[in-house]
Amino acid sequence: MTAVTSIDPRTGQVVETVAEQTTVAEVDALARQAEIAAARLERLGRPFRAGILRALADALEADRETIVALAGRETALGPQRLNVELSRSCYQLRLFADAVEEGGYLEAIIDHAGDTPAGARPDLRRMLVPIGPVGVFCASNFPLAFSVPGGDTASALAAGCPVLIKAHSSHPATARRCFEVMQAAATRAGAPEGTLALLYGHEAGPAMVRHPALKAAGFTGSLHGGRALADMAAARPEPIPFYGELSSLNPVVITPAAAAERAEAIGKGLAGSATLGAGQFCTKPGLVFVPVGADGDRLRDAVAKAFGELDAQFALNGGIQASYLDGIEARVDHPGLTVLATGGDASGEGFRVRPTVFTTDTRSLDDVITSECFGPTTILMSYSDEQDLHGALLGLPGSLTATLHIAASDDVSSVLDVLRHKAGRILFNGFPTGVAVAWAQQHGGPWPSTNTLHTSVGMTAIRRFLRPVAWQDAPQSVLPAELRDDPGGAAVPRRVDGVLVP
Amino acid sequence: MTAVTSIDPRTGQVVETVAEQTTVAEVDALARQAEIAAARLERLGRPFRAGILRALADALEADRETIVALAGRETALGPQRLNVELSRSCYQLRLFADAVEEGGYLEAIIDHAGDTPAGARPDLRRMLVPIGPVGVFCASNFPLAFSVPGGDTASALAAGCPVLIKAHSSHPATARRCFEVMQAAATRAGAPEGTLALLYGHEAGPAMVRHPALKAAGFTGSLHGGRALADMAAARPEPIPFYGELSSLNPVVITPAAAAERAEAIGKGLAGSATLGAGQFCTKPGLVFVPVGADGDRLRDAVAKAFGELDAQFALNGGIQASYLDGIEARVDHPGLTVLATGGDASGEGFRVRPTVFTTDTRSLDDVITSECFGPTTILMSYSDEQDLHGALLGLPGSLTATLHIAASDDVSSVLDVLRHKAGRILFNGFPTGVAVAWAQQHGGPWPSTNTLHTSVGMTAIRRFLRPVAWQDAPQSVLPAELRDDPGGAAVPRRVDGVLVP
Repeated sequence: MTAVTSIDPRTGQVVETVAEQTTVAEVDALARQAEIAAARLERLGRPFRAGILRALADALEADRETIVALAGRETALGPQRLNVELSRSCYQLRLFADAVEEGGYLEAIIDHAGDTPAGARPDLRRMLVPIGPVGVFCASNFPLAFSVPGGDTASALAAGCPVLIKAHSSHPATARRCFEVMQAAATRAGAPEGTLALLYGHEAGPAMVRHPALKAAGFTGSLHGGRALADMAAARPEPIPFYGELSSLNPVVITPAAAAERAEAIGKGLAGSATLGAGQFCTKPGLVFVPVGADGDRLRDAVAKAFGELDAQFALNGGIQASYLDGIEARVDHPGLTVLATGGDASGEGFRVRPTVFTTDTRSLDDVITSECFGPTTILMSYSDEQDLHGALLGLPGSLTATLHIAASDDVSSVLDVLRHKAGRILFNGFPTGVAVAWAQQHGGPWPSTNTLHTSVGMTAIRRFLRPVAWQDAPQSVLPAELRDDPGGAAVPRRVDGVLVP
Repeated sequence: MTAVTSIDPRTGQVVETVAEQTTVAEVDALARQAEIAAARLERLGRPFRAGILRALADALEADRETIVALAGRETALGPQRLNVELSRSCYQLRLFADAVEEGGYLEAIIDHAGDTPAGARPDLRRMLVPIGPVGVFCASNFPLAFSVPGGDTASALAAGCPVLIKAHSSHPATARRCFEVMQAAATRAGAPEGTLALLYGHEAGPAMVRHPALKAAGFTGSLHGGRALADMAAARPEPIPFYGELSSLNPVVITPAAAAERAEAIGKGLAGSATLGAGQFCTKPGLVFVPVGADGDRLRDAVAKAFGELDAQFALNGGIQASYLDGIEARVDHPGLTVLATGGDASGEGFRVRPTVFTTDTRSLDDVITSECFGPTTILMSYSDEQDLHGALLGLPGSLTATLHIAASDDVSSVLDVLRHKAGRILFNGFPTGVAVAWAQQHGGPWPSTNTLHTSVGMTAIRRFLRPVAWQDAPQSVLPAELRDDPGGAAVPRRVDGVLVP
């Protein structure tokens, strides 16, 4: 057994030993327990489950000080950001509690028996039910919002699925603390044993994805690691859905009119967005299309100035630091790229990385430029006119987001036609690094940003962990209450004989 | 190039040469054309697309006589069944036209900007958009309802996706005729060139699934073939969703009270369902749990009598015939299985198969008994009491359907708890071979019946070919009309600030 340790990225030193790596046999036992918990959790019903979700939120908030301090020590992300992250996760749990109570997510449909042009139709009633135990991989970059607490855990629990959570090696102490707090709260709220489980170490992830009791997995991380796990999920004797959020370039387009109007503000905002959290956001703007000319030059100057004023930042772990250095080296060596500005020198202890912004033009577009470089860096790409821009955009890979900075007078319909096929969220006059928790959020775009037709943030994320069941000519007494003619207290929005009834 | 021929299953003889096999280069050209058509088709909008769907239905009905005759010649399924199948496909196209006009399938959501406990929320608006070109594999057993016309084609077109259709070698002339009729109607209705394409031959399927322009595929067929294609879809540089409907046992449980009440009627109905269309339904009841005792014996006698009165039937093709013979041989050789009755002798020309029903009890349950045997056969499994039944049900693989025959006094909640995890549709006092087209239909269950959390029949099948896009702080003018504050004529059901507005 190998120890799982907590490392301070500011020093690179081990601070404490958190746990032993979970063995394959332990994963098996936990997965089987989750399988038993699944049936019990579902039977407890929606209002009870909403209560569990709210209890988790309350408990996390009650432990805020300890959790934020631990996460700060393990990630160097700072208390302001981490407090917002925790608030976000608690808000998300509560919003899911509301959604579970409302029940629209069940997609309840009733078709009464009747004649159709294709013959007699029986009584059919359909709704979504929990898929079973779900595996969740913590992400390095959001210790409190895409990890033990976070969108995957919250949406799986909301759906009625027990969750096995694989801790990230970047913040195992934070994971342990959050898990202890959440497990205790879940138990107090009456959740069955096995509703939550925490796994550590390199063996646990693959063992979890391969386990027959697991029915789906959610992942936020690298393209390489995510693809390997996705392939594993697809190659199982019984393939399961693997919801991966993998790699994203997040292009930004600035129109000439927008640059003319507010070059400095956009430039400053861009630098802030690209270096937020040491550039370790999956929605970091990685390629920015800047118009040639004086306004574009002003914008570039503003970005350069902002980068020049930055200190060195701390990567979350040694792996990210090393891969950032590789990425920067590849860009420095790239004949089409020029360093525009750098932040403070990265020498000194810990996992320091130097903010670096590059410039280029559309002729240089290639795989190096369109690949994600995780960390505080971005590339400003000059374009000469709309045709030049259009051609470059067509060559981009899929992203989580695409951003447009426009002026009121701009007609961007043709650019939008391209971007709509390249991203899952299109922003206007903002920056993509914020991903609000909302009903209408979409965090997921074309490959390689994700491999899914779903979102991992926002209320519709719940659909990933549900499967439909239809009952045909069922006696009222055996139907789920939500599908009975008289649902009583379990009323939910339904489509009845083709008509939506909210 | 190898010729694609049309064979009459009643004789096993080639009747005509239909086409040349589609080459990989031709698949490439058609897929690229579909990619261009995708953008055009989407721009035409929902009402226009509904018009195309209705035009397809009208055209198929206008050509009914020719289509049914051709399908009859190629499948030996008979005019009554084939007429119903065509009516079904036309009804489905029209129901999708209605659904496309209504627009609830878009899952339109609007969250206006506002404050949340996790900070300020921007204006976010989300809806589903077409995924791009879709590949559809025709099924051997439904030449008119799961082939060129059918649920996959209809739902993909309804979603706004061009469709590449791989003809099945069992009925290429029917496929060609349906395609010609549909393509002409689509063109007359204003569909862009490339909206529909038809491919023939063994190379075309894999080439289609691997083509970068393809964004999803729908398949109904064997576990072996489907799994190979699913693996191919998952292993692409850009993995795509593969919606496979593969193999299904469709267990039936008859309670002692139901057997006491109506043993003969159930037995007769079962035999009819198991041999309908020569037992070539994906929802054919393949394993029937019959209570021990006099009532169960009466039921068995009724099944035996009905099988004994049947003539030999025609398999759709030589492959199905050969695999049926293998399956029957394995069952005959099985020490736990006894032949209860057989239908007419299968000697003589063509792809004849002999209806055969077996009996066994729960102690014999194994992989032979739980595997699908495509053709006019089923197994009656005696059970002694509820505990015996319960144990056997736990050992079953996932199915499209599970059926219960019960009496009014029966409490079947514990059996239902098991069956709900084993199937996508639970039927009461009926037979699973009918799959009504309806909003509430669910045709898809746990592995190996499907590999998807979706249905391939019914209105919600459309979700498979859509992906979500969110617009953040977008000017009204660039939003899809459905997401504008004033949608005008494009009004659809929406969720606005968390509240459903139908």
